[in-house]
Amino acid sequence: MEKQVSGKLGGCEVRVRDGFWDTFADLVRETVIPYQWEALNDRIPDAEPSYAIRNFRIAAGLEAGEFGGMVFQDSDVAKWLEAVGYSLAKHPDAELERTADEVIDLVAMAQQEDGYLNTYFTVKAPDERWTNLHEAHELYCAGHMMEAAVAYYEATGKRKLLDVMCRFADYIADVFGTEPGKLRGYDGHQEIELALVKLYGATDEVKYLNLAQYFIDERGAEPNFLVEECKQREGYSIWTDKKMPIPTAPQMAYNQADRPVREQETATGHSVRAVYMYTAMADLARLTGDQGLLDACRRLWANTTTKQMYITGGIGSTHHGEAFTFDYDLPNDTVYAETCASIGLIFFAQRMLKLEAKSEYADVLERALYNNVIGSMSQDGKHYFYVNPLEVWPKASELNPGRRHVKAVRQKWFGCSCCPPNVARLLSSLNDYIYTSSASDNTVHVHLFIGSEASFTLAAGQIAFTQQSSLPWEGRVRFELTEAPREAVTLALRIPAWCHGNAALILNGTPTAYQTEQGYAVVSRVWSPGDTIIWEPELTVQLTASHPAIRANAGKAAIERGPLVYCLEEIDNGALLPALSILPGAEPQSSYDAGLLGGAVVITAEGRADERHSWQQAAADSHPYRPLAQQRPSSPVQLKAVPYYLWGNRQPGEMTVWIRINTEAGE
Amino acid sequence: MEKQVSGKLGGCEVRVRDGFWDTFADLVRETVIPYQWEALNDRIPDAEPSYAIRNFRIAAGLEAGEFGGMVFQDSDVAKWLEAVGYSLAKHPDAELERTADEVIDLVAMAQQEDGYLNTYFTVKAPDERWTNLHEAHELYCAGHMMEAAVAYYEATGKRKLLDVMCRFADYIADVFGTEPGKLRGYDGHQEIELALVKLYGATDEVKYLNLAQYFIDERGAEPNFLVEECKQREGYSIWTDKKMPIPTAPQMAYNQADRPVREQETATGHSVRAVYMYTAMADLARLTGDQGLLDACRRLWANTTTKQMYITGGIGSTHHGEAFTFDYDLPNDTVYAETCASIGLIFFAQRMLKLEAKSEYADVLERALYNNVIGSMSQDGKHYFYVNPLEVWPKASELNPGRRHVKAVRQKWFGCSCCPPNVARLLSSLNDYIYTSSASDNTVHVHLFIGSEASFTLAAGQIAFTQQSSLPWEGRVRFELTEAPREAVTLALRIPAWCHGNAALILNGTPTAYQTEQGYAVVSRVWSPGDTIIWEPELTVQLTASHPAIRANAGKAAIERGPLVYCLEEIDNGALLPALSILPGAEPQSSYDAGLLGGAVVITAEGRADERHSWQQAAADSHPYRPLAQQRPSSPVQLKAVPYYLWGNRQPGEMTVWIRINTEAGE
Repeated sequence: MEKQVSGKLGGCEVRVRDGFWDTFADLVRETVIPYQWEALNDRIPDAEPSYAIRNFRIAAGLEAGEFGGMVFQDSDVAKWLEAVGYSLAKHPDAELERTADEVIDLVAMAQQEDGYLNTYFTVKAPDERWTNLHEAHELYCAGHMMEAAVAYYEATGKRKLLDVMCRFADYIADVFGTEPGKLRGYDGHQEIELALVKLYGATDEVKYLNLAQYFIDERGAEPNFLVEECKQREGYSIWTDKKMPIPTAPQMAYNQADRPVREQETATGHSVRAVYMYTAMADLARLTGDQGLLDACRRLWANTTTKQMYITGGIGSTHHGEAFTFDYDLPNDTVYAETCASIGLIFFAQRMLKLEAKSEYADVLERALYNNVIGSMSQDGKHYFYVNPLEVWPKASELNPGRRHVKAVRQKWFGCSCCPPNVARLLSSLNDYIYTSSASDNTVHVHLFIGSEASFTLAAGQIAFTQQSSLPWEGRVRFELTEAPREAVTLALRIPAWCHGNAALILNGTPTAYQTEQGYAVVSRVWSPGDTIIWEPELTVQLTASHPAIRANAGKAAIERGPLVYCLEEIDNGALLPALSILPGAEPQSSYDAGLLGGAVVITAEGRADERHSWQQAAADSHPYRPLAQQRPSSPVQLKAVPYYLWGNRQPGEMTVWIRINTEAGE
Repeated sequence: MEKQVSGKLGGCEVRVRDGFWDTFADLVRETVIPYQWEALNDRIPDAEPSYAIRNFRIAAGLEAGEFGGMVFQDSDVAKWLEAVGYSLAKHPDAELERTADEVIDLVAMAQQEDGYLNTYFTVKAPDERWTNLHEAHELYCAGHMMEAAVAYYEATGKRKLLDVMCRFADYIADVFGTEPGKLRGYDGHQEIELALVKLYGATDEVKYLNLAQYFIDERGAEPNFLVEECKQREGYSIWTDKKMPIPTAPQMAYNQADRPVREQETATGHSVRAVYMYTAMADLARLTGDQGLLDACRRLWANTTTKQMYITGGIGSTHHGEAFTFDYDLPNDTVYAETCASIGLIFFAQRMLKLEAKSEYADVLERALYNNVIGSMSQDGKHYFYVNPLEVWPKASELNPGRRHVKAVRQKWFGCSCCPPNVARLLSSLNDYIYTSSASDNTVHVHLFIGSEASFTLAAGQIAFTQQSSLPWEGRVRFELTEAPREAVTLALRIPAWCHGNAALILNGTPTAYQTEQGYAVVSRVWSPGDTIIWEPELTVQLTASHPAIRANAGKAAIERGPLVYCLEEIDNGALLPALSILPGAEPQSSYDAGLLGGAVVITAEGRADERHSWQQAAADSHPYRPLAQQRPSSPVQLKAVPYYLWGNRQPGEMTVWIRINTEAGE
């Protein structure tokens, strides 16, 4: 685990300074965090109360009342604290820190004598601790608060929440395990596993690592704990408030608990649970050298990203259970592709990069970040997509019940919800995703091209540099060394998949050849302050085809430019987007439009519009099927595509990522 | 109302004798009716009991026990009796008739003193009659038994069931109406309206016609009866067995009761309820000359068939509530297109033809019959599709919950179900759909080209002829007069839309010009026995495009030949059907394959298969998105299409009706 503590061997310190990304971080700091604070305190007009802070006050004995909100309501407070931690690390803010300290005092007061901390069970069902791990998110909430504790400690150096969560973790370690008298259980919603690894990283307490390992190892073992637990409750469900049929072990595939994790072949079940678990598995594989876990991680990574991932980095193609379905089943219109799932995929990618610096992990990380994740948030930071579709017909979203989950407009955020706080904590901690380093190898890998100041403590000594990036609009990145040891250090720059190997490296003004290792351009030398690298991955417009087994995309192409996926919107192209097709022979044109939603490169391409005049001329009640031979020629149109992440920010309308390919020759 | 009674003015007698259609009628007679009888008596191994006959025995006091099955279980007995009636009309069968007579005795015994007949309420809730019309299908069951009574009476001349149902209808007329003290209600599931019109037709009792009119007139009036009724029950629902929120009047659009029927603009809500209601509306418009109803019928017909109908004649595009969604929303993969809805559409078309002989009604009737309806039944008569998709990917049906309702294989019929008995009664009564006549105008319209013997009692006298048809395989029909009056009679032969006006008429061996009226070739003359007409509507293969607003079909074509829609199946074309495209320039070829499922014309067409070799060669975990420029040329393939109605009869696999159009020039 790399510590975010400079000066310690293997440590690093990274600060983002980037025109493109600072906008998002500023939005989180200036809008999302304050707005969420209001939400947590039930002060958003016309919104359902969150009850989250109130629950802690009741559990702390400061207020009388009933528990309110979802069983996992505590996690909203945790995610807020975590985002605050990341934000304070970059932007000290005494008032915000004081507020957070007060929340932490409250959390500490809500902790029970024995270290237990969960307001639902403390307030509502004190005798039912650990009786419904399948449904009640008890360890899940603990995990989120551990992540908050680590983030807040690393940002501020304050240990209070960290100590609270260590006490809770110690208690959990007393309750769970394989030893006689302990509960051989695990959570229905994975999260604590990756959190315990973070707690280990912050404290060096091996027992937390071991506890994470226990949860991963025990999951899916026979007899199936979640099934047996359900039998103990006689099927009682917290969701329906009555007894339900006892599920079978295979049904626990939804929770990735139908079989041991090392035996899992494909991404299955609830997609957020899955990627949170894979993240912890990758952490453990790295920290313990467990080859079986590493193999499983590689297998599940490959299945997730090459068979079950949308071009936008979205995963989980059905809203029924927010789940994976099966290989190549990626419908664009009935899609789910939840924001949180892509965030979890980014966590998983980051951990795989720490395990082994292969550019394919960073390629996927970048894809999910620049498309699915930032596309989920509106320009005002207060409206979000939970579902991130690749094709939208607003009327169908409104009137066809099978598409009602696909919203044509970002929804107002009501506090009690997973995606917005998850976006907030990711965008506040982007500095953690740009680089990895290996102190012993004296190597720094650059995975993302995001403007930043970075310093690393390697075996050779301290190295520091700045990165300036013109991504995503231009393929030009500049590094300048600000500090360097006297020994050689390797800088490894990712050759993004989208440049297809065409990337020039200019070292101190001189075009320089480079070795390629695992998708990275490797430059090894003794650096001096003032040294510069210009890195120019070729950034061109590309028409992209998808694997033929992805039936939804047959005969269609997407437009990509660098890390960005593009889309057509009704506002630019008129209604009836499916009637449009693109001519693959003609070169699409890019131009920067400073007036478009903060500025963006837009793409125009030659296309065709199916003839519809003759249909419009016909009587309104004429038959909707007629001989193809009566169809008149299509007409030339100029297609205008905008970055997917910007869709739906102007006015509601149709949108599509995949465009029919027109094979008319000679045009 | 045309009576199926020969010799009476306006009467007609039609017997089907047709190589294509007798197969289906035989299947119904020899397999479906006996199989359903076993089902009704709970004698199908491994199937849920139906309880339907047993419920009547309990209600009749012959057996003790609890009501079993659905609240509308009685209607299964009714539909069986109705199909038996039609079958006996063509094929006398003493044993079957004896069995039916016994069932009718049982039904009569289950009737209450006051005429009431419904085993659910009699056995289970005698004090709750008429308290839940919204959900309990009380009048719906009554309607089906009235239809059975009329069919059985007309087939056998036996009045017992007719008398039972007249007594029930008399009682219903005492309960419902606008007069003080009467219940101003109507059923949640329309059906009794059309049944009462049939009862009027069989008895000439105007009160039954008036009662039908009352139900239609009252529907959707304010205050909304179904809402008020629900308030009376305090929201209690028979389905959930608890109190539910009181619905609003607009929510009654599901039952077409949100507004008066004459104000309804588009087909909305549950599709079977809708078309059953439209059928009754058309009946009433014809019998009463009600212009407002006629306008509504034309409007709803136009909306249903030009905006919300699949090319197969399927209607109702979502399985959520088995309902219509909105104009041009006709997804092929998440489709519903229930068999019963197309049967109801056929009823509606038949009634519109009786109102006004316009070929568009018969075109739709034929489309639904030859595609959606007969496609729903397997070759053994024991397996059925309730959902009739236009695109199937079996793995998605299995593993994507949003498509689980779309079955890749016809389902075994378990008796307690709507579609199979509905198919049975339609296919046993096809003789009612071929012709209409106007006695006063001395005109007979031929709507369907189905081999038959027909005689009509017109003002001019009796006319009789035979029809021999080679449809659907060839466009050749031969009529021979067997009896004719001395006065002129007009024969009007439908010019099917699929021949695009190219139809030759050969009168007594001589090609003869004809007048066209409302889509019919009209020949008016004094006929003599032995006169022949050869009618040759041109039957060619056609590639069909759909209205551009039907987004699901953009860039695609379907193959049609005469009345038949064709499809591609995996067994003929390999897996991955979306990777195939059709060349519109090349002429598809037809050939009769005697070995294919009883014999059928198959169509071959030139196509292309997207290149997939390079994908298969790549590593299994290679990225699923790549530059379109890397795609190698597609390869020529011969597409093989079979009639849609035969799909899924060989082995499970992919199927598609709509095929991508390949616009590569010069090919």
